[in-house]
Amino acid sequence: MIVEPGELLAAIDSPDDLKKLSEDQLVQLSQELRQFIVDTVSIYGGHFGASLGVVELSVALHYVFNTPYDQLVWDVGHQAYGHKILTGRRDRFPTNRRYGGMSGFPKRKESEYDAFGVGHSSTSIGAALGMAVASDYKKEFDRQHIAVIGDGAMTAGMAFEALNHAGVTNSNLLVILNDNCMSIDPNVGALKEYLTDITTSRTYNKVRDELWNVLGKLSKFGPNPQQVARKVEAAMKATLLKQSNLFEALKFRYFGPVDGHDVQHLVTILNDLKSIPGPKILHCVTVKGKGYALAEKDQTLWHAPGLFDKITGEIYKKHHEKPQPPKYQDVFGHTMVELAQQNGKVMGVTPAMPSGCSLNIMMDAMPDRAFDVGIAEQHAVVFSAGLATQGLVPFCNIYSSFMQRAYDQVLHDVALQNLNVVFCLDRAGFAGADGPTHHGCYDLAYMRCIPNMVVSAPMNEEELRNLMYTAQLPDMGPFSIRYPRGEGVMPEWRLPFKKITVGTGRVVCEGTDVAILSIGHIGNYAVKATAQLAAEGLSAGHYDMRFCKPLDEEMLAAVCSKYKAIVTVEDGCLQGGFGAAVLEFMADHGYHLPVQRLGIPDRVVEHGTQDELYKECGFDAAGIAAAVRTLSGKVAAKAAVETVIR
Amino acid sequence: MIVEPGELLAAIDSPDDLKKLSEDQLVQLSQELRQFIVDTVSIYGGHFGASLGVVELSVALHYVFNTPYDQLVWDVGHQAYGHKILTGRRDRFPTNRRYGGMSGFPKRKESEYDAFGVGHSSTSIGAALGMAVASDYKKEFDRQHIAVIGDGAMTAGMAFEALNHAGVTNSNLLVILNDNCMSIDPNVGALKEYLTDITTSRTYNKVRDELWNVLGKLSKFGPNPQQVARKVEAAMKATLLKQSNLFEALKFRYFGPVDGHDVQHLVTILNDLKSIPGPKILHCVTVKGKGYALAEKDQTLWHAPGLFDKITGEIYKKHHEKPQPPKYQDVFGHTMVELAQQNGKVMGVTPAMPSGCSLNIMMDAMPDRAFDVGIAEQHAVVFSAGLATQGLVPFCNIYSSFMQRAYDQVLHDVALQNLNVVFCLDRAGFAGADGPTHHGCYDLAYMRCIPNMVVSAPMNEEELRNLMYTAQLPDMGPFSIRYPRGEGVMPEWRLPFKKITVGTGRVVCEGTDVAILSIGHIGNYAVKATAQLAAEGLSAGHYDMRFCKPLDEEMLAAVCSKYKAIVTVEDGCLQGGFGAAVLEFMADHGYHLPVQRLGIPDRVVEHGTQDELYKECGFDAAGIAAAVRTLSGKVAAKAAVETVIR
Repeated sequence: MIVEPGELLAAIDSPDDLKKLSEDQLVQLSQELRQFIVDTVSIYGGHFGASLGVVELSVALHYVFNTPYDQLVWDVGHQAYGHKILTGRRDRFPTNRRYGGMSGFPKRKESEYDAFGVGHSSTSIGAALGMAVASDYKKEFDRQHIAVIGDGAMTAGMAFEALNHAGVTNSNLLVILNDNCMSIDPNVGALKEYLTDITTSRTYNKVRDELWNVLGKLSKFGPNPQQVARKVEAAMKATLLKQSNLFEALKFRYFGPVDGHDVQHLVTILNDLKSIPGPKILHCVTVKGKGYALAEKDQTLWHAPGLFDKITGEIYKKHHEKPQPPKYQDVFGHTMVELAQQNGKVMGVTPAMPSGCSLNIMMDAMPDRAFDVGIAEQHAVVFSAGLATQGLVPFCNIYSSFMQRAYDQVLHDVALQNLNVVFCLDRAGFAGADGPTHHGCYDLAYMRCIPNMVVSAPMNEEELRNLMYTAQLPDMGPFSIRYPRGEGVMPEWRLPFKKITVGTGRVVCEGTDVAILSIGHIGNYAVKATAQLAAEGLSAGHYDMRFCKPLDEEMLAAVCSKYKAIVTVEDGCLQGGFGAAVLEFMADHGYHLPVQRLGIPDRVVEHGTQDELYKECGFDAAGIAAAVRTLSGKVAAKAAVETVIR
Repeated sequence: MIVEPGELLAAIDSPDDLKKLSEDQLVQLSQELRQFIVDTVSIYGGHFGASLGVVELSVALHYVFNTPYDQLVWDVGHQAYGHKILTGRRDRFPTNRRYGGMSGFPKRKESEYDAFGVGHSSTSIGAALGMAVASDYKKEFDRQHIAVIGDGAMTAGMAFEALNHAGVTNSNLLVILNDNCMSIDPNVGALKEYLTDITTSRTYNKVRDELWNVLGKLSKFGPNPQQVARKVEAAMKATLLKQSNLFEALKFRYFGPVDGHDVQHLVTILNDLKSIPGPKILHCVTVKGKGYALAEKDQTLWHAPGLFDKITGEIYKKHHEKPQPPKYQDVFGHTMVELAQQNGKVMGVTPAMPSGCSLNIMMDAMPDRAFDVGIAEQHAVVFSAGLATQGLVPFCNIYSSFMQRAYDQVLHDVALQNLNVVFCLDRAGFAGADGPTHHGCYDLAYMRCIPNMVVSAPMNEEELRNLMYTAQLPDMGPFSIRYPRGEGVMPEWRLPFKKITVGTGRVVCEGTDVAILSIGHIGNYAVKATAQLAAEGLSAGHYDMRFCKPLDEEMLAAVCSKYKAIVTVEDGCLQGGFGAAVLEFMADHGYHLPVQRLGIPDRVVEHGTQDELYKECGFDAAGIAAAVRTLSGKVAAKAAVETVIR
């Protein structure tokens, strides 16, 4: 072990062990747990601030409730490190988020304590409600069901849908609102302001002031109207606070706000809540990054800081002699500002990912033209559609896997109306350590079947810039651009804009016998493959198709005529994706070449680095080269057979 | 003209004409408009109750606001008949929902008064907010933006997401909450109860009672504490009502509730609201079906009753000598009850479509096992996932086009966790008169790329029952079953359940040269086509594949070996759909036959009857037969050439 946990934590291999501690000891345990997270994450990496914010909550929940019989759902789940450490995964924790190691999120197949697999936000209330209703049906009335959800996640519509349903059940559901005013970035929106109002009691104070004011004017009545007022105030306080509460309006019993870092008080409250039937909400105020001063101060930076020196707080960065390629997201962010400066119609929209997608660059530079709408992908798209009806050109940036949340809106509100909304899908393809919930495997398939939609993917920074430039030219209609997490390949990327004619690919290199058709950044692995093959004396052609739809039919016809076999490569699912599009073209035009499609297979691929996963799925450079070799062999064998027959 | 409109309505060809009327005349106009809708819909069909409920609102809005400069978005839009009639489409109204005629929903390309195309619920607030923010940006500060949304649509998460965003803007947005307690079926959920509370002032009454009670006990203070109470009450009423309001919590100014059928009062209020800046909500109480007694009484039946005698209220039904095939939805509904009786784990879930999908049959028979969760597709799926974690087998019935709303939940919450949730996708394929927003074109493509998901489609009632039976057997994982709107083909459909081995197709008939591979109900058109072809002496094989995933690879291999060409037929999009799956199989296994894929092309297909649209897209029986003839000709020509070469 690299870390030295304190004495209490080291003895806890399950919540049963935790329950043996006295309530007094929970304070020390919380300190040890927090230290363990700091020690481990600083060395091994991972999410940081969120788990520090719920250390006391994690301890109190497992102390009070009978997990896993009582069911605990952590919304999003990157705050569940404490939960994982307390439920038998302390020793495995250094494998967190590594290839073959434990997942960075709760996962049903990893532990019976992980009641529901999570990753995307705002699922916890609905899932826990389903469990609670199942318990009602099975007459397991003693069973508790707990959803822990942040105030950011509470803004997503699905959370509201679940509250609306839960409010009219009598199910045993406890929602713990972890109110820290933060997602990855600071939360926005009316709900956040409302929660601040509650916490600072503004609503109540306003009513009280009104009451005092009125009674002050009534001095002719009675000996001491202010005394009357005090009595009235005391009697009405409970009623008022209760009636004025948004959650009470939705038929939840509301409790709080309470200090989410007072572990003993939490234990008392949670024990009390156990005996209160029906849907109820406990409003906990916490601090993201609690206990690590730097993380409390810059919560966005310390959401997932990478490796760092836990003493000095220095976040390690690789130092390079030469300029390095930028992250694709930063190319997006800077290019937005450039385009917006040139074109007054360009606007930016993000659902709660300003720092994740780098729209924060534009939000800082031109705050009236870039909008963070909260964790609300559906609304982000419809809001963009509304902007587009007025002749503006919104760039709506949503991670590929989160865009699944707004599929109907892309289709129904943008595409059917042929509105010029540009969808920038960051984190397309394998997301890496975040794993299957965050892999953007499906967008080429789910976007390609949408009418009017342009489906494109740049192979490098220059193409990303030029696709963005092209997408904001007049009358482009719905336009999607997907690119991966991480860096591109061009240190010098700020080249002048050039229009790319929609539906045109690019010849990377000509070859003989076998052609590689690639879409997007993964094409750079095809470049390595063709270099390897050339060294072996095999000449493969390589075409950067750039558009999955419309396809460059002229280029495809030429390729089908020239070559004897084709390899398609995509960092996306094989079912219905880019390779399938090529097959459709060939069937429609009567081409009958052998085609080997490389991409993400039809199964759940777990977490790991992108390169580990490309390799696992056989479309890293070696995999691409191998496919070409195999096809070349078949082509040669067939030619030999044909020669013999002749 | 079949109808005889009154004198006022006949003179109104645009809102400008409407504005020439005096306020007094609006009452008569409303009567005429209501009568016109009754007259026309009774003869030509269409949605009914919803438009009757907003007659006065439609008149008042166009009277007060400067449409189309002021932008009016009708949520869902089937209530917008009055709006359409008042905005220059009175004479075209009899073509409503007919092939080539006007759309049953607002549509941007149909009229400049239709600010936003709608169909699916709950988009209006976000779209209008986008417009309002665009107006801010363009400094068009006089421009008004109005969203009219039902209380049912308000339960969908996206509406909440939009409120949360709008509340922190200063944009000129008026949300009109059309509170009639109904979607197609009666609304459910906490929000509905809350709105009833407001309307009946229970919240306010409760606080007031508390106040009187307390002051009564304070009789030793002053001469007349009840008088004090009255003063206090009056002064606090406004504050209290305001502070206790859910919408005020979200930073909207709240007005109402008001009578949505008092057109003159509406005009006054709307005029007042014009001068109030920022986001505001007007709570209008209306009656669905208002003014047509039968429609007021049975609001679900009269949502879209079909043709009827407007005097007697008799809804016309076709009379048949012989028993007719049932609707697929009713096969689903009755089969649910049968399966639930056999298997205690089977549960039913619908998002606000109990009568639309016939889950109401189970809700009546076993109310503790079938749930209407409100217009909340996302929650419906996550709630189902929660049930499934407890070993239950939920059948979650969502129309194909509405399932787009829950795409992420299907993928992230069900499929990645391999939970046994059965998705029944009603209205798959062309929905008919409802048009493109409701066509279920994409599900085969968007479901097929999801790992672990079984993608199936029955060709008839018996197969639907047997697929449903199969899906609830142990360890099936995520299982989707799609079927179309309307009737099947089997009058005698209640046959005993038989398990269908997952991934197996069925030979309908053997043939020579060309094979037809069909998926789902459209296979019945292939049956007609093979009969036509047989009459011409052409013998086509026909295979009902039943599963789009996993494909019956054994059957496909046999077909590819036996036949010289293949026609695939699906009532779904060609991009990435069933035909594409067949091409993928062939490429992966080295088969190189000509394949003609028939299905929905890559463009927006408008409304019409299903048969009209099948024909338009070339996959009615004639289209299928034509494709086989063409391929047969090619096969024969190729054979002739090969003979010559030899």
